[in-house]
Amino acid sequence: MSLNLSTAAVHTMTNKPWTLAQCCDAYARAGFGGISVWRNVIESIGIKEAARIVRGSGLKVPALVRGGFFPAFDSSIRQKAVDENKTCIDEAAAVGAEMVVLVVGAVVGMPLTEARKQVTEGISRCLEHAQANQIKLAIEPLHPMYAADRSCINRMKEARLVCEQLRSPYVGIACDVYHVWWDPDIETEIELAGQQGTLFGFHVCDWRPNTRDLLNDRGVMGEGCINIPHLRACVEKAGFKGLNEIEIFSTEKWALDQNVYLNEIAEAYKQFV
Amino acid sequence: MSLNLSTAAVHTMTNKPWTLAQCCDAYARAGFGGISVWRNVIESIGIKEAARIVRGSGLKVPALVRGGFFPAFDSSIRQKAVDENKTCIDEAAAVGAEMVVLVVGAVVGMPLTEARKQVTEGISRCLEHAQANQIKLAIEPLHPMYAADRSCINRMKEARLVCEQLRSPYVGIACDVYHVWWDPDIETEIELAGQQGTLFGFHVCDWRPNTRDLLNDRGVMGEGCINIPHLRACVEKAGFKGLNEIEIFSTEKWALDQNVYLNEIAEAYKQFV
Repeated sequence: MSLNLSTAAVHTMTNKPWTLAQCCDAYARAGFGGISVWRNVIESIGIKEAARIVRGSGLKVPALVRGGFFPAFDSSIRQKAVDENKTCIDEAAAVGAEMVVLVVGAVVGMPLTEARKQVTEGISRCLEHAQANQIKLAIEPLHPMYAADRSCINRMKEARLVCEQLRSPYVGIACDVYHVWWDPDIETEIELAGQQGTLFGFHVCDWRPNTRDLLNDRGVMGEGCINIPHLRACVEKAGFKGLNEIEIFSTEKWALDQNVYLNEIAEAYKQFV
Repeated sequence: MSLNLSTAAVHTMTNKPWTLAQCCDAYARAGFGGISVWRNVIESIGIKEAARIVRGSGLKVPALVRGGFFPAFDSSIRQKAVDENKTCIDEAAAVGAEMVVLVVGAVVGMPLTEARKQVTEGISRCLEHAQANQIKLAIEPLHPMYAADRSCINRMKEARLVCEQLRSPYVGIACDVYHVWWDPDIETEIELAGQQGTLFGFHVCDWRPNTRDLLNDRGVMGEGCINIPHLRACVEKAGFKGLNEIEIFSTEKWALDQNVYLNEIAEAYKQFV
């Protein structure tokens, strides 16, 4: 049975050419249940106007994207990162988001073990502010091809280890199929996240064989090799009740008419998620 | 203390514009200890002539590259893969190589667990031929970004599980820093491979931050973020006594004067491995 679009939220970055207002309008009209808001679409109009637009749309807001980037050799830069993450939390609260997604960061020349320590420390310093604003923080494990400079957390397991250290209802995991589909431990880790109450988010897109670019060549669901229904069954079995977030970066797709493209996404969601 | 070049072997693919004779000549003159031979440089001249050139060079030959690609939906294609791997073993014996490196394969639409079963089965069917020819088979775990269609074995751990099933002195692992540097379990797995006698090969190059291409944008040692000396210390502590193999695919570097480039590689090896 195909899914109803009301179970899905679309990330604004999926339709990068659009403004926040265009995204809200199009997603609501198409029948999607929610929107996840990237900071770039807020920046140009300010958080007050962004909050007005998002709240006026009637869409649910799983996530503000993205905080993180905690590790740095210089402690003053780490402090700036914590401050910036607190601003993310404020913005998330303003638009009515459930969580801030964290791309945790990595630094060339710093061992990944040290970077993960600094990530844990950085998140811990945001926790009080997150709790005060009732905003969850979701660590997103990024594909190992981003381990050099974007994320020192590349599997669900390392995200879990941070969660187990911090033991807060405000720290959990955003599981994006693009990053974790290859992981032989994925089923086990999703189950554990369910048990530990840390499965905050579930993101879908697809992995294109012969991927042409490390950043912006994601496929629409069904265009690639990921068994998305299997992973969705895993997260649902683990108790996940949130919206399925559609997050696709694609230079090719951004060049299309975004209304036509959103239709394609809607059909793909119903058929392949 | 910097390494002597006699501890290194160069993969012919590193200097793709060169013929086998040019590679042998240049590597021997530069003082490298060995050469690992890719099949494309054999194909154009035939195995007899290739064997004559390689054996005449006085270079050691850690590996013939590459066999593998075992999984397929169709059993007749799997049979062809086994036959092709036996030919690889013959060629390895002809050029005096210690091992055949296996890029094990993956198939879009086939679960990775099933593909790994077929890999284990495929290797098992080559074992008698490998033993008869005294040629080792080295499973090379490939980076998770190749899981769609090149390799269903993306960590040392899954390579180990295959080795533990087959329990043959002719089945082991080629550990390439490019593929495994990010793995949080890498130190543990190298140690285990040492204990189990399966650490057959050690390949070096570097991971460039902002990698521009998934296949052919590897860095020369020192150009990227991999802590190669640390990983070399790990394999040596685990008892590895083979040559360190230099394997760099780079469209950018292939466009250079290959003699100048080989000098750059030699200096990088001494300084950064």
